[in-house]
Amino acid sequence: MTAPPTTRLGPVAPARTGTSVLLPLGLDEVVLRGGFWGDRQRRNRTATLPHVTRQLEEAGNLANLRAVAAGDTTARHRNMVFADSDVYKWLEGVAWEQGREPAPELQRALRTTTDLLRAAQDDDGYLDTAFQLGEPGRRWTDLRSGHELYCLGHLTQAAIADVRATGADGLLEVACRFADRAVDLFGPGRREGLPGHPEVETALVELYRTTGEQRYLELATLFLDRRGRGLLGSGRFGSAYYQDDRPVREHRAMVGHAVRALYLATGMVDAYAETGDTSLLDAVVAQWDATLATKTYVTGGQGSRHLDEAFGEPYELPPDRAYAETCAGIASVMLTWRLLLATGEARYADDMERALYNVVAASTADDGRHFCYVNPLQRRGPGPARPDWYECACCPPNLLRLLASMQAYLVTRDAGGVQLHHYAAGTVDTHLADGRRVAFAVDTDYPASGRTTIRITGTDESPWSLALRIPAWADGATLRVAGATRPAVPDRRGYAVLTRTWRLGDMVTLDIDLPPRVLWPHPRIDAVRGTVALARGPVVYCLEQVDQPDADLADIAVAADLRPAPGRRGGLDTLEFDATVRVPATVGGAPYRSGHPESEERPVRLVAVPYHAWGNREAGAMRIWLPLRA
Amino acid sequence: MTAPPTTRLGPVAPARTGTSVLLPLGLDEVVLRGGFWGDRQRRNRTATLPHVTRQLEEAGNLANLRAVAAGDTTARHRNMVFADSDVYKWLEGVAWEQGREPAPELQRALRTTTDLLRAAQDDDGYLDTAFQLGEPGRRWTDLRSGHELYCLGHLTQAAIADVRATGADGLLEVACRFADRAVDLFGPGRREGLPGHPEVETALVELYRTTGEQRYLELATLFLDRRGRGLLGSGRFGSAYYQDDRPVREHRAMVGHAVRALYLATGMVDAYAETGDTSLLDAVVAQWDATLATKTYVTGGQGSRHLDEAFGEPYELPPDRAYAETCAGIASVMLTWRLLLATGEARYADDMERALYNVVAASTADDGRHFCYVNPLQRRGPGPARPDWYECACCPPNLLRLLASMQAYLVTRDAGGVQLHHYAAGTVDTHLADGRRVAFAVDTDYPASGRTTIRITGTDESPWSLALRIPAWADGATLRVAGATRPAVPDRRGYAVLTRTWRLGDMVTLDIDLPPRVLWPHPRIDAVRGTVALARGPVVYCLEQVDQPDADLADIAVAADLRPAPGRRGGLDTLEFDATVRVPATVGGAPYRSGHPESEERPVRLVAVPYHAWGNREAGAMRIWLPLRA
Repeated sequence: MTAPPTTRLGPVAPARTGTSVLLPLGLDEVVLRGGFWGDRQRRNRTATLPHVTRQLEEAGNLANLRAVAAGDTTARHRNMVFADSDVYKWLEGVAWEQGREPAPELQRALRTTTDLLRAAQDDDGYLDTAFQLGEPGRRWTDLRSGHELYCLGHLTQAAIADVRATGADGLLEVACRFADRAVDLFGPGRREGLPGHPEVETALVELYRTTGEQRYLELATLFLDRRGRGLLGSGRFGSAYYQDDRPVREHRAMVGHAVRALYLATGMVDAYAETGDTSLLDAVVAQWDATLATKTYVTGGQGSRHLDEAFGEPYELPPDRAYAETCAGIASVMLTWRLLLATGEARYADDMERALYNVVAASTADDGRHFCYVNPLQRRGPGPARPDWYECACCPPNLLRLLASMQAYLVTRDAGGVQLHHYAAGTVDTHLADGRRVAFAVDTDYPASGRTTIRITGTDESPWSLALRIPAWADGATLRVAGATRPAVPDRRGYAVLTRTWRLGDMVTLDIDLPPRVLWPHPRIDAVRGTVALARGPVVYCLEQVDQPDADLADIAVAADLRPAPGRRGGLDTLEFDATVRVPATVGGAPYRSGHPESEERPVRLVAVPYHAWGNREAGAMRIWLPLRA
Repeated sequence: MTAPPTTRLGPVAPARTGTSVLLPLGLDEVVLRGGFWGDRQRRNRTATLPHVTRQLEEAGNLANLRAVAAGDTTARHRNMVFADSDVYKWLEGVAWEQGREPAPELQRALRTTTDLLRAAQDDDGYLDTAFQLGEPGRRWTDLRSGHELYCLGHLTQAAIADVRATGADGLLEVACRFADRAVDLFGPGRREGLPGHPEVETALVELYRTTGEQRYLELATLFLDRRGRGLLGSGRFGSAYYQDDRPVREHRAMVGHAVRALYLATGMVDAYAETGDTSLLDAVVAQWDATLATKTYVTGGQGSRHLDEAFGEPYELPPDRAYAETCAGIASVMLTWRLLLATGEARYADDMERALYNVVAASTADDGRHFCYVNPLQRRGPGPARPDWYECACCPPNLLRLLASMQAYLVTRDAGGVQLHHYAAGTVDTHLADGRRVAFAVDTDYPASGRTTIRITGTDESPWSLALRIPAWADGATLRVAGATRPAVPDRRGYAVLTRTWRLGDMVTLDIDLPPRVLWPHPRIDAVRGTVALARGPVVYCLEQVDQPDADLADIAVAADLRPAPGRRGGLDTLEFDATVRVPATVGGAPYRSGHPESEERPVRLVAVPYHAWGNREAGAMRIWLPLRA
């Protein structure tokens, strides 16, 4: 046996053995080629990346850094207090792209921005333009809202991406110096500080993985353990907003600001992976289960409330005023990926898939240059679905960095083989723990169809396992291996596992049934009582007004035995079905009357399209949940 | 004929003849004696008033004024930028109470606070502690959010209350000096300013009514006419938030911040009443109609959104996240009262009644010392219903001033007689336009029952009309006059009108049927699809968890032919009925499944109580809308 060849690590790289059931593949071991995600990764590079670069320039995020680097501390800080973090997320995306496919302009962006950051960094390692421009006395005085540790987190992730994707460690040096400053200030025996916006925890664990320096892992766990003691104070929305109302291990469901809660859980799983502290994993598993069951939209969106960008109460899931922030969807993907690595259970890949197809994919417009911050499940009228930028621009560069590293979130390996969690066209070329090379090509147009064909392109004479996720929503699936067809029966973790001595050219065909599904909400979800939603495979469908010339979306109703038929129009997969238009009797006065409201009814044919495609045509009403004809 | 005796005017006193169809009675011409509103007015005086006094002291609102009066401009301003307005609303309430029933401590509060305000006022008339404490250069620089004109409005209303209720004009002098400063700055040909938070418009019209000074009316109409030209800029929530997105006459429904929109409309009707500009009245009537039909809760609450305290889209009426600010309910009462005066149409009294019984009455706890700011129609779990104060404390003193002048909002007169809009126990002793005295006693326990008895206690030998509102929700009503019973048939304005030559001791008995009503929402209100609500008379009912030992409120369902039976328990009127508990099958994972959700069902008897009484017992879930058994 030969030692495994060195590969470049991707965005989440557990170092300790024995805690993670599955391991990620190397960054360059999976290559997307077209298909749903390959096309989006390409658009991310060609359209989104230059757009974000331009916007960061225009919004002043880079100007802040230049002012500090030039020593001009009298310049006014532009943009939000966490403006630097948007630069870091962009930089992380640029690094992943440069690793995927080098280009001179990406290389230039990485190197000049690294130089800029080095120049902007203070002698003591401090680096946060929101406080470097302005009164120096304000540094570290507002850990609740100042976002300095949050910015450190994103800087660190960008630096790790750069070193992993390109091998350049200049940015890592900057990140380590800032992290060391944080260790000095908040490490063991020092000030009992903690960040109001979690994110640095996961970054510090990754920094430990990258550098081997124990102090970063220690600081991450300190930040986790300090929560829930009221150290942050209550602020405008109370301590639950910051997940500081109780210790991290004592939460039974996610509360407060959704992105904060999800990033925090992400850091907890990372800390578990390196420390083996199962109380962290157990807590996150329990919290995730409850959050999934009571605080998650059918799209996978999370965080219902506009006011404080927070999870609401259990079953508080309004479709029209859904907040479902794009960053929360991204954070949920990051969390479920870590839970998948930690447990090997397909249910986390199912959850991840839901958020990928119905939040992440929905957040960017077809042009790659307009983005949802909020991802509503209903719109009552016209209005732009996606602006091209935001004053609080956390989401677009977050999409950028995720899509730039998308291939790292699809496939894993363990001692005995390789697991395909998500079906995407491309190639896999990796090695098992014992050093054996395994490689195969994946051909699929999933989720348009449920067929995925795998052709073995690298193997030796000894057996290994190919595990294929059978989604929980799948009513049935079949496998064709070496000419024989049989039902694809998932094991207890949710995978159909083929263990064989493979030969080059062996073909595996997985056919997952993708009939349209009519989804009924849990009866406690008050906001969508008396409605159903449509899905096909992992894709949730919606109705857009533009497709219904004969019906106002406000007045449609469907039968309980609705039978949608798959179709295709204008480049979109559709579901088409008979329904009713109920035109309410015109009334004045208050809209509450004794007796069932009267209406005139007429039949109509309706057309649903994938929710991820909404808002790309004529602006108008949109709805996922379809009222049932009472 | 003798001239009408001079009476003290109440809170809304149109001066021009011919524009108002109905005129308010004098402040002392209606006296509440017990009953629903008499008891609440009493509690307002004995519990709420001293509580608000104490809270304003503790919160620093009075300290701000004392600091400015003492010339200590280095003191830090405490509380919100509009902190002074809470003092003015309190002062207005104190004045109305002193007029109703003099007391030395009320007199002292009025006089010492007047002295304090006089001392705090600048030589040029300016008076706003938020800007007097702090940089003087900031005055009048932020009309969008600075609230200086809003504070002037409330000061003016307090001053008018004082002069009308007690005859003292010291406060009026202070208000006129500040108003004159505003005329200097923003009057004809001066700076084109306007307030970000309307309120001063109605106050300036009243100031014109009180002083006869045309310039105040002129400034009010200028402020109205300047709206919709973008002069305020867009701010965080856009110009519609400030009703500055289009001219006031061009809005077709209310938009933006609900209290702002309602106060603005209030000023528009007042301006109409004095100028005869029917385009103002027409616009408000159209806006109100649309707002009532599409943006009003079954409680009369208005303004759905937490984020910007705003009206949402048409039919966006979530019960759990209802904002329905108390101040918006109060503002809607002020608006519908003015519309009632202007038009004489009972429908506005109906709307007013809805908000009075289900928002205003619901906002204060039984103890008179805890208040709702937000008035939700559903709560899923425990938690205090009403805090005893708020950082933004606009609502409690607003309740104070309304309830202290409550008797002024019940009865009107016109040339030919008197109109009873709201049935409340007490006495009426007034005069008609020709000077004739008419007086009667009202005996009723409305809304507990629908019976109201009126005994004539003052009349002469000539005929006059007694008009009794027949609420639109009433299925039937009967009148017994001088021993004869007949159906109470409303005229086209909504009143049963009795025109006769009355004799002292004549008795009229009105019996309005109050059977329980099952209310169905308009099918476009997505958030309450598949539910019904219960009402009896003007009172909306709710279920509180504390009354249902055998059912979790999250799991109840009622039949479409629900027949609630009136009852009484623990001092509360109830509606009791058979229903079902559906315990959902325990499921993990996402709460969306193919197929109708399974549940175990069992019968249960449920008890509803008036919504205005909610939250006074053990904290727990509460809901107005009851899911229908599918």
